[in-house]
Amino acid sequence: MKSYLMNDNVKVYRYGQPMETNIVQGRKVEKQGVDEIIKPKFENGKCRFDIKLQPDDMVYGLGGNLGGINKRGRRYESYCTDEPSHTDEKRALYGAHNFFIISGEENRGYFIDFPSRIKYDVGFSQLDKFSIQISGRDFCLYVIEGKSLEDITTNFLKIIGKAYIPPKWGFGYFQSRWGYKNKEEILEVHNSFKEKGIPLEGIYLDLDYMERFKVFSISTERFEGFKNLVASLKKDGTYLIPIIDAGVKVEKGYDVYEEGIEGEHFCKDEDGKPYVAAVWPGDVHFPDFFKEDTQRWFGLKYKVLTDAGIEGVWNDMNEPSIFYDEKSIKDALDLAVESKDKDMDAFSFFAAKDKFENIANKDEYYQRFYHQVGNQNISNDEVHNLYGYYMTKSANFGLSSLLKDKRFLLISRASSIGMHRYGGIWTGDNYSFWSHLDQNIKNMPSLNMCGFFYTGADTGGFGNDSYGEMLVRWLQFSVFTPLLRNHSAIGTQNQEPYAFGEKVTKECKKIIEARYRLLPYIYSEYMKSVNNFKLMFRPLSFEYDEDLAKEAEDQLFLGEELMIAPVYKANHKGRFVYLPEKMAEVTFDEGNERLEVKDSGIHYFNYKLSEFKFYLREDSILPHVASAMNVKSLSQQKLKVLAYVNARAEYNLYDDDGVSYDYKKGKVYNTKIKVAKTSQDYMIEVKNTNPFIKEAEFTIVNSDNKVIKKTIKL
Amino acid sequence: MKSYLMNDNVKVYRYGQPMETNIVQGRKVEKQGVDEIIKPKFENGKCRFDIKLQPDDMVYGLGGNLGGINKRGRRYESYCTDEPSHTDEKRALYGAHNFFIISGEENRGYFIDFPSRIKYDVGFSQLDKFSIQISGRDFCLYVIEGKSLEDITTNFLKIIGKAYIPPKWGFGYFQSRWGYKNKEEILEVHNSFKEKGIPLEGIYLDLDYMERFKVFSISTERFEGFKNLVASLKKDGTYLIPIIDAGVKVEKGYDVYEEGIEGEHFCKDEDGKPYVAAVWPGDVHFPDFFKEDTQRWFGLKYKVLTDAGIEGVWNDMNEPSIFYDEKSIKDALDLAVESKDKDMDAFSFFAAKDKFENIANKDEYYQRFYHQVGNQNISNDEVHNLYGYYMTKSANFGLSSLLKDKRFLLISRASSIGMHRYGGIWTGDNYSFWSHLDQNIKNMPSLNMCGFFYTGADTGGFGNDSYGEMLVRWLQFSVFTPLLRNHSAIGTQNQEPYAFGEKVTKECKKIIEARYRLLPYIYSEYMKSVNNFKLMFRPLSFEYDEDLAKEAEDQLFLGEELMIAPVYKANHKGRFVYLPEKMAEVTFDEGNERLEVKDSGIHYFNYKLSEFKFYLREDSILPHVASAMNVKSLSQQKLKVLAYVNARAEYNLYDDDGVSYDYKKGKVYNTKIKVAKTSQDYMIEVKNTNPFIKEAEFTIVNSDNKVIKKTIKL
Repeated sequence: MKSYLMNDNVKVYRYGQPMETNIVQGRKVEKQGVDEIIKPKFENGKCRFDIKLQPDDMVYGLGGNLGGINKRGRRYESYCTDEPSHTDEKRALYGAHNFFIISGEENRGYFIDFPSRIKYDVGFSQLDKFSIQISGRDFCLYVIEGKSLEDITTNFLKIIGKAYIPPKWGFGYFQSRWGYKNKEEILEVHNSFKEKGIPLEGIYLDLDYMERFKVFSISTERFEGFKNLVASLKKDGTYLIPIIDAGVKVEKGYDVYEEGIEGEHFCKDEDGKPYVAAVWPGDVHFPDFFKEDTQRWFGLKYKVLTDAGIEGVWNDMNEPSIFYDEKSIKDALDLAVESKDKDMDAFSFFAAKDKFENIANKDEYYQRFYHQVGNQNISNDEVHNLYGYYMTKSANFGLSSLLKDKRFLLISRASSIGMHRYGGIWTGDNYSFWSHLDQNIKNMPSLNMCGFFYTGADTGGFGNDSYGEMLVRWLQFSVFTPLLRNHSAIGTQNQEPYAFGEKVTKECKKIIEARYRLLPYIYSEYMKSVNNFKLMFRPLSFEYDEDLAKEAEDQLFLGEELMIAPVYKANHKGRFVYLPEKMAEVTFDEGNERLEVKDSGIHYFNYKLSEFKFYLREDSILPHVASAMNVKSLSQQKLKVLAYVNARAEYNLYDDDGVSYDYKKGKVYNTKIKVAKTSQDYMIEVKNTNPFIKEAEFTIVNSDNKVIKKTIKL
Repeated sequence: MKSYLMNDNVKVYRYGQPMETNIVQGRKVEKQGVDEIIKPKFENGKCRFDIKLQPDDMVYGLGGNLGGINKRGRRYESYCTDEPSHTDEKRALYGAHNFFIISGEENRGYFIDFPSRIKYDVGFSQLDKFSIQISGRDFCLYVIEGKSLEDITTNFLKIIGKAYIPPKWGFGYFQSRWGYKNKEEILEVHNSFKEKGIPLEGIYLDLDYMERFKVFSISTERFEGFKNLVASLKKDGTYLIPIIDAGVKVEKGYDVYEEGIEGEHFCKDEDGKPYVAAVWPGDVHFPDFFKEDTQRWFGLKYKVLTDAGIEGVWNDMNEPSIFYDEKSIKDALDLAVESKDKDMDAFSFFAAKDKFENIANKDEYYQRFYHQVGNQNISNDEVHNLYGYYMTKSANFGLSSLLKDKRFLLISRASSIGMHRYGGIWTGDNYSFWSHLDQNIKNMPSLNMCGFFYTGADTGGFGNDSYGEMLVRWLQFSVFTPLLRNHSAIGTQNQEPYAFGEKVTKECKKIIEARYRLLPYIYSEYMKSVNNFKLMFRPLSFEYDEDLAKEAEDQLFLGEELMIAPVYKANHKGRFVYLPEKMAEVTFDEGNERLEVKDSGIHYFNYKLSEFKFYLREDSILPHVASAMNVKSLSQQKLKVLAYVNARAEYNLYDDDGVSYDYKKGKVYNTKIKVAKTSQDYMIEVKNTNPFIKEAEFTIVNSDNKVIKKTIKL
């Protein structure tokens, strides 16, 4: 082991000969040799850390996994997996997010830089033991210190580099469905939103737009005149976001396949032939994204889409997901054939059934194909968790090259920390379960801690049928998440905001409009979080120490200003809300907002289905605007400012052009708002460099619930 | 349609020519012809009722289904199904519990007496519409009125007859596991409990005790000397409860099979041959429990067990569960063989996979075999929901005949209302998920409404791995449920109270002891609930009308005296508790109890893992005793009485011999306790006919939290 201080807050322990993952950025050695904080045990080529947990210790982090904000009492595995059913016992989902904080008497962050499987037993097998098993001997352990929990996350975020920044339109509302089968259905969705006056920023295109699941193909039959479609919708403010899968269909004459073979871009099997796995198109080869020329080749294939006017894509199936491979399907069919004329008992039946039932994503597949890393051939298994990361890096390279100065929308399903610099993620194939809305809430701060800011869940739930009440409640939460997408699976109940009757349509419209009203604030908070390495969503326990704050995982701080506490249960007309401090309840009605200051403590607040509520903290300012049908038509001319002020409050509303990278050159707008209480009134000061804002209309409440309104020309 | 008044509270609507299910008892006609409350629509041989729901209406009932106490926002199907995964979207579980109450401006109960599929859409497809689809034209609809929600349930329970009453030892703590593979393991469990001083009433035997899954066989190899084992354990206070499945293995020379063939006891296929389905033993035939002589034949087969000293059994797989049948396995294998040399695409692969994956419990199986009902052959599908009911009726007949005056323990997995008279039910194959503990809580009142009082869930969770904290929390709830069984599946983490280390063992011991301390009260409440047709577990909304009471589905009234509000979430050191009225918090420490009166309102109460708490209502009395290792060694000599009295309180502690049916002849014990506040003190009166109680030790608290202790000799 070699150890060193990377900076004042980060100690690095290098065991064996770890592969360079490029997750940690700008690493340099401040000082050689630092003490080991926890000692590993090496055994059978694996490594284990055992950490004693005190009864009150909490474990934060681990990104887009199941469970609470506090990860205790569960087992996890970092091994990117296309897990189609997020039931409670599942340990591995799509991401490898190996950052966590142990919080108790001391707080300390840990990041394990290792590209294959890591198992976590967080006080599951033994209440007081946190066991970490790394399936190898070559890795780096980073130990991150800080003055507070938040400080630790900042110190970690700083070493992994700034997160991906989408265009501002990426913060709009997106509709999606696996099963919009042709151009006509896409137009129908677009028109329905328009007719009903529901804001819409774009429509995601799932597999359906391709020609027989071939990546970088567009069905000429079902999506004839694709380029015109893209252009006419974009003109009307609606972007199309097509999907790209990792696997390339094996098909003679198909350009991507032929080029891949020609350029030796595909992962090889043991015999050095391109590895064959089956995914949506049937047999596919996987691009070897570990090779830089393959990254470039695949990345530039997105040209097919950008040439058609596309400015955003989603990368899917890139764990990579494998339905079966040549060997496994042969085994399954062989056993079936063998069983055919036998008198089966239950167990031989279960054996045959199992061959089919559990045929997807078997561990052994990932041992059967190889990446070329430098001069070495390394099995996917050994570097498994980097595959989706490198695919998205490839896409980022391609889209950056193709779209030049224009920002693009890019999200991925599989991820590793590090990928956060290249694209966002959605939380994968959730279900229309109330518990998955609950999970969505709990994931947000954990994802932020691991660098993922442009993220969100499939609103309304992907699998199974959603229903009106669920969609309304889900939206009431997800309008706060940077990535806001309503997505559902083929064969399920249609899930557009207007699919559940008039009453639900009306409520959904109101909430989506609330998103657009809040969009300047959400965008500002996003940009500041990313640029300042601050969490956008924070657990209450990052600021408050009581048991109740630690357990209120269904409430989140958003930025410095807001606390959100959504309803996420069926048939509820209200919920318990814990206010750790006095806050102003904000109710967004159609076109106006109400403020009412509530005492700190435990409350039951009414949240009728039609009520959209959140909380503004004391001495805080929330700017917002009138809603619009999409980002490009959102006017900031009249800024509306809600403030709850007893002493003095400040807010700096960040903005930029939303489309270019000029913000990197300092071309940004700041609207610095100050409100201070004077003996009789408030002193308001606005320093504004944003040319689009002409007027600020203030609604200020104090702790006596006295509301004052003022308007200032800028 | 013919309609009549059955009694003052029950209207009956008879559509078509319904089959006699014997669910409703002692039906007579008070008055012919009453108005239709809701009108059915008949279409394609089916019937639909559409009921408009107001926004605040609640729907109670539907027994052992998923979802909340309020059933709105979900779809259900009554069609007894061996559903191995109780995920949120599932509509049909093991029971057909067709009683529900619509509660709003008016309250009204409904019971549909129909033996096949009924679909309920409770405001799912449309927020304000409750749709009921009955898959036939011949049924009875009962409409039940009452002065209150509770009164409606009582009026319903009265017409379906008194629930099954187990022996008092049935209220002890039971250990179970699918996978205790031989006598030695059973003895090890017994000895472990004994060594650690954890009370144990009995051990359930799963499939493992049989000879190759043959019902009414006992493995001579693994359970050699079964009778001696039963006797020696019973002497030591531990009962064995073996499982019996519905299917009889097809095997020449196997007595049950041969007798079944000989006596024509098996269900027939279309060709009049015994229907072959596959379950655990491989091919089986299903006894035709619709024939009375088959009921008698099968019932008396339990003699194999009672002869060995067995006094309790559990009936399983009696939906009946079918893994596959001859035709379906042939189809699956044929498709596999056909696919063998084809180049499969994803969809033909999914088709082949689906044949295996979804091969269990297909609708078509139940259309392929027939029951003899009178002179008619009726497909199982048409009378599906009565199968488990009649199997358990058969077992009840057998055990009653064999055990004569001795009460027996009998539970079943499949059920229909009506079966509640013959045995209890457990809630089937749940998982070690926190959400399934939550479900357990919510199920209790709904099950009571449908007549099922002797019921409970697999504590700790059946499927998947449980862990220490979960087991402790689960026990803290389930020690209140009449059926208290810790059961887990083969291949999962061992789940005995001592399987999770010392700390957990200690906590589990304390909570199981609390069960025995409370056992006199729980038994008393059980007997009174059954005999007086009163719910044992009641939703708060049966007494309180606020939104909060309606939504506090994680709190229950138990009897008239207690409110329980368990912790059912990971990593929680407390929870929100809503006290609709002043209550005394009762904390059970080792060997003593503390009372502390809390104001009505919303609280966050600490519930450390080591704290076992519940609430005693004002002017209520809770008798209890010191713990013991099992029911037979439980001494009532010193009755301990907790009371929270501001004015006056009364409690009648019911008891009987616990083993015979003498209670029916009035051989019962009553201990009538009265406590009244006087100006300075309390007046205590105890009228006792229970010869075992010699002394009563009172701990009385008033609203000022002043505690007084008194002891009275009896």
